[in-house]
Amino acid sequence: MPRYALKIDYDGTPFAGWQAQADQPSVQGAVEAALARLDPGFAGGARIAAAGRTDAGVHATGQVAHADLEKDWDPFRLSEALNFHLKPAPVAVLAAVPVGDDFHARFSALERRYTFRLIARRAPVTHDRGRVWQVLNPLDAGAMRAGAAHLIGRHDFTTFRSSICQAQSPVKTLDEITIEEIPLPQGAEYRFHLRARSFLHNQVRSIVGTLERVGAGAWAPDRVAEVLEARNRAACGPVCPPQGLYLTGVGYPRDPFAGA
Amino acid sequence: MPRYALKIDYDGTPFAGWQAQADQPSVQGAVEAALARLDPGFAGGARIAAAGRTDAGVHATGQVAHADLEKDWDPFRLSEALNFHLKPAPVAVLAAVPVGDDFHARFSALERRYTFRLIARRAPVTHDRGRVWQVLNPLDAGAMRAGAAHLIGRHDFTTFRSSICQAQSPVKTLDEITIEEIPLPQGAEYRFHLRARSFLHNQVRSIVGTLERVGAGAWAPDRVAEVLEARNRAACGPVCPPQGLYLTGVGYPRDPFAGA
Repeated sequence: MPRYALKIDYDGTPFAGWQAQADQPSVQGAVEAALARLDPGFAGGARIAAAGRTDAGVHATGQVAHADLEKDWDPFRLSEALNFHLKPAPVAVLAAVPVGDDFHARFSALERRYTFRLIARRAPVTHDRGRVWQVLNPLDAGAMRAGAAHLIGRHDFTTFRSSICQAQSPVKTLDEITIEEIPLPQGAEYRFHLRARSFLHNQVRSIVGTLERVGAGAWAPDRVAEVLEARNRAACGPVCPPQGLYLTGVGYPRDPFAGA
Repeated sequence: MPRYALKIDYDGTPFAGWQAQADQPSVQGAVEAALARLDPGFAGGARIAAAGRTDAGVHATGQVAHADLEKDWDPFRLSEALNFHLKPAPVAVLAAVPVGDDFHARFSALERRYTFRLIARRAPVTHDRGRVWQVLNPLDAGAMRAGAAHLIGRHDFTTFRSSICQAQSPVKTLDEITIEEIPLPQGAEYRFHLRARSFLHNQVRSIVGTLERVGAGAWAPDRVAEVLEARNRAACGPVCPPQGLYLTGVGYPRDPFAGA
């Protein structure tokens, strides 16, 4: 059976998350329903696998999944047909490419990239409701960067891990946190860019919620090192809400979408 | 009566435009209804005046209006109270400042700035539905810039003017068109930034719709000079839809919001 990798973009607002669940709208369910219109295997209940199982309300601009289809498709026609059947759900296939049987969207991935969008201003957000987290207090980007620096590298991230996380180990290597500051007509937007081989459940939202406390001046930047060292979930700052989080990309040994 | 200038941000999607109309939701009506909760004059039917009367579906990040209130307000408390009463409409007051009686949001304005957001990609837009215009064909930014260069300066813009435009003269001076190209995971976004003392009705949408034809390769860049010279509405390219258009700022002899 030919295997295809799909690069998928979605607004997570109307979904209970990536993962298919009975009686709940899911991104996986929407893509599988579109595949079922094209392919007998999916009409019979075949499933797709994704690199990152995003939570309810979390968005993606570069999710990757793979699907085994019964017949060969021209990649462009496959993505066009899927986008036709996905309407009007806010889910779009950006690229579909044939891959070998050894490609697995989740297990072949070497890197996940996430961006968290945080707007700090008094006036209510209008254009980006449901797509950013808003706080009313101003933030100090320098303090947040100083706090974030403590998290780079290989650490036991128990403090920044949801109590329902199913990962075998809390030890992860965080390769990057950069914080972009974009001035707005009132206040500013902060974009947190995080990159790691893999993340623990709620790790990005736990980190951003903690760094927001640092940016607000409620926490000294060095407290981030202390709570990391504590390896204690209760030491974490508030976990921020899902609607600012975007899965922006997934890295593989060879990019299946290069040239697509 | 103390006069206040208001800087206003809104998502135009649910509104029939800026201007108050009977039985239609308008941004002006939403702001006046919030003012009526605070001020007896507005409870009695006083009106506000704005720098730009945006059409249905058009957005703003920096609209300016002025209001005459019966009592003196602390500017910060006034903006907070208005934002409280504006909820849940996607309209926010970014700043409220006291101004002299000689300040008029529309007639004192020396410059209006607009941005038009255009996304060129095959896959349906997900995150920015209702906030951008999407075309499926790729665009050539260099060709669009070459076409736009013909429009800079003082010209008779009859070709780029709605047939219902009420301006006394079709002669306007366009001070700037810059076209920003932002790569996306698939395709690209183009942001057209236009600046002029004032614009004719539908002028920005007529210009962007015409430049899109140039970017698509359907028009040579020099055809923009020819249709401008024709002074003939029928020579214009297609007028693009309102949802990509943003009023981003208004310039005055002295910025009333400096330091706000």
